[in-house]
Amino acid sequence: MDNGNIRIDDLQRGGLVICQDPSSFCFGVDAVLLADFAASRINWNERTIDLCSGNGIIPLLLTARLDGLDITSIEIDEAACDLAKRSISINKLENIKVICQDIRKLPPSFTGFDALTANPPYIPLGGGLPSQKAGFERAKHEVSLTLAELITTASRLLKNKGRFFLVHRSHRVGEIFNEMQRSSLAPKQAVFVYPKPGSKSNLVLVYGIKNGGEWCDILPPLYIYNEDGNYTKEVLSIYGQDV
Amino acid sequence: MDNGNIRIDDLQRGGLVICQDPSSFCFGVDAVLLADFAASRINWNERTIDLCSGNGIIPLLLTARLDGLDITSIEIDEAACDLAKRSISINKLENIKVICQDIRKLPPSFTGFDALTANPPYIPLGGGLPSQKAGFERAKHEVSLTLAELITTASRLLKNKGRFFLVHRSHRVGEIFNEMQRSSLAPKQAVFVYPKPGSKSNLVLVYGIKNGGEWCDILPPLYIYNEDGNYTKEVLSIYGQDV
Repeated sequence: MDNGNIRIDDLQRGGLVICQDPSSFCFGVDAVLLADFAASRINWNERTIDLCSGNGIIPLLLTARLDGLDITSIEIDEAACDLAKRSISINKLENIKVICQDIRKLPPSFTGFDALTANPPYIPLGGGLPSQKAGFERAKHEVSLTLAELITTASRLLKNKGRFFLVHRSHRVGEIFNEMQRSSLAPKQAVFVYPKPGSKSNLVLVYGIKNGGEWCDILPPLYIYNEDGNYTKEVLSIYGQDV
Repeated sequence: MDNGNIRIDDLQRGGLVICQDPSSFCFGVDAVLLADFAASRINWNERTIDLCSGNGIIPLLLTARLDGLDITSIEIDEAACDLAKRSISINKLENIKVICQDIRKLPPSFTGFDALTANPPYIPLGGGLPSQKAGFERAKHEVSLTLAELITTASRLLKNKGRFFLVHRSHRVGEIFNEMQRSSLAPKQAVFVYPKPGSKSNLVLVYGIKNGGEWCDILPPLYIYNEDGNYTKEVLSIYGQDV
């Protein structure tokens, strides 16, 4: 790997760092929100798997909250996996295992997880402009994995009553709920995220249980910015900057 | 009909009144929100049908916004239909036709509507406490109509690209989207309604299009009360009390 492009960012979580390639896909607020959402619902002793793991931001943030959590990180892109392994090495973490693999090709014996997180590509093929930069295309568009494939696989990887945590674009929530139902993942909680008061929602956090019941709580909305353009208290708190 | 129980309420809409029986089911904020949501999306010349119409609150409120709108009002409960007819007579409206009928038994020829509104019973059979009062049980519980039956029927009654407007409990949004997809009603917009900031959502307004595309906007949340316990500006505006 060419070290020239690699940047080491402080995650502001007790010295934890992440290796990122600024010319490729770097993590965004969606990953931070998903990690916070999942970390507050996962127990430290639960076998957890992260799909579409990219440079490993979700496992790193989960580890920061749940010390020693056993996490398997699956990512198809080799360069992203290399970044994840490098972060794990620098942070001296032994609890995160990175597997460079197409999740659709995981063996059938690979199952029985207690919890699963996913921050998949958001844009269906044919939607949006193709990304020109290497590493962006697969991270943003459903080149290697559709929403239906992701959810089918997630359900298969989870044990009965296993828990599923997803961040995705809000405008696809109908499809998400349909695919979840088709795969026996019952939506139990959802948080709609709004860029600011008065805007449409752009992201949704969904928590589902494999073979769970039908009641789904729609939790209070989460606003990223206040009307004055500053981060809200909730977002500052999620970023570890308590106010 | 025994006139002794009937109360005539001013709808605060240019003199429009509604007849209600205080010992039975009277309309609530959900009906007012649905009527406002639908009225701002329906054109005055569209053939509209209201299901689970109760005492006719939705047709009356739609008429107040869309003068002369052709509305068919379907309700299974005879006493509620009598109240609706009485309101129509007092208000001298000729555009609302009330049909006392089980919507599952409407003839196949009954179809081709441009727009459809529904404020159905919210609680599945076996959920919640049965209502003791006459008129409440069928209005609140799925005694005569399940959510799946409602949505299947709604789709059948609409023409291609016809529009569907529903108010329901938020915790059933997964079921709602699943049933809509099954019936070719694509969710296009949803508004989650919260009693106050920081609470879970209790109601959702959904707008769908028969054979529409997949994009669904999640519009800004609607709060009923401010933190100080007063109605929000948005709700006062919907109630016609502009601030």
